[in-house]
Amino acid sequence: MADIYLALIHYPVYDKGHKVVTTSITNMDIHDIARSALTYGVKRYFVVTPVRTLQALAEKILDHWQHGYGSVYNETRKDALALVTLADTLNNTIQAIQQETGERPRLVATSARDGDRRVSFTQMQRRIAEEGPPLLFLLGTGWGLTEEVLEQVDDILEPIRGVGTYNHLSVRSAAAILLDRLRGAR
Amino acid sequence: MADIYLALIHYPVYDKGHKVVTTSITNMDIHDIARSALTYGVKRYFVVTPVRTLQALAEKILDHWQHGYGSVYNETRKDALALVTLADTLNNTIQAIQQETGERPRLVATSARDGDRRVSFTQMQRRIAEEGPPLLFLLGTGWGLTEEVLEQVDDILEPIRGVGTYNHLSVRSAAAILLDRLRGAR
Repeated sequence: MADIYLALIHYPVYDKGHKVVTTSITNMDIHDIARSALTYGVKRYFVVTPVRTLQALAEKILDHWQHGYGSVYNETRKDALALVTLADTLNNTIQAIQQETGERPRLVATSARDGDRRVSFTQMQRRIAEEGPPLLFLLGTGWGLTEEVLEQVDDILEPIRGVGTYNHLSVRSAAAILLDRLRGAR
Repeated sequence: MADIYLALIHYPVYDKGHKVVTTSITNMDIHDIARSALTYGVKRYFVVTPVRTLQALAEKILDHWQHGYGSVYNETRKDALALVTLADTLNNTIQAIQQETGERPRLVATSARDGDRRVSFTQMQRRIAEEGPPLLFLLGTGWGLTEEVLEQVDDILEPIRGVGTYNHLSVRSAAAILLDRLRGAR
């Protein structure tokens, strides 16, 4: 079984007008995705931003739940947030996983859009079931990962489809569905 | 195909100490679950609270995205929030669906806990595929729906299982996974 890592990318991502921007860190992204990550056996959840003040904000949130009042008030939250690691860049994230596992992770982008070389969820499930390098799934904030990131990855996962054409899930919901499709017991 | 409705219950639910409480409405619960609801063809998403000031808060949020600046800034959000209806109580929610469809909905509770008479996701998928009364899925906030509510429903859906014993998904993530399991195309 291949190890699964997640990274929530705050830069580089598109904004609504297709401009490359850095998005803000939000409290709910950290909490919700950490809880989903622990539910589905993710090894580590990287929150990636180059902005120091936003990293400091994230550290404050993590410290509250890891060591502050939150750690006593809600232990289940403490357990989930223990999976969160802050990183400056995608490259640093890759290096951290390489240090932890001795292997370069295979990069898998997620996207709400159709396009070339999309890998199906079934194919990805099969790859996870095999022995292989760790898999790092990239989640874009804002209006999604830039072309520059997509060109750098090994695979792009097919979009999550519901019943119609609406494809505007929150990144928190998309992360939950992604993990359930790849790892859920049913 | 049976119609699907969702209700996010803010009262009566348990708090951490198993006391029956009313939880607060949060902006993110409204947005994230509305976006998942539209993705998966839910007919209407009820936000249920007896507290007038919290209803007024929710109305302000909805108005911003339906008619205010948000409706111009982000149309996809407007479309999702059009599914949201405020209700005082579960009974009012049931009546609203009865008025809309001419049928009393079948009530399905969701729970993170195992217990008696749990219905599997596969069984529920089959029921949705059949012609039948509308199905109203109840999502609890806080530490979940009270026993009083569970005694009132027709079915309780089995808990969402990941790879271990941790069962503390956010209600936003649980709603997304629930809908994907019942209605997702793959």
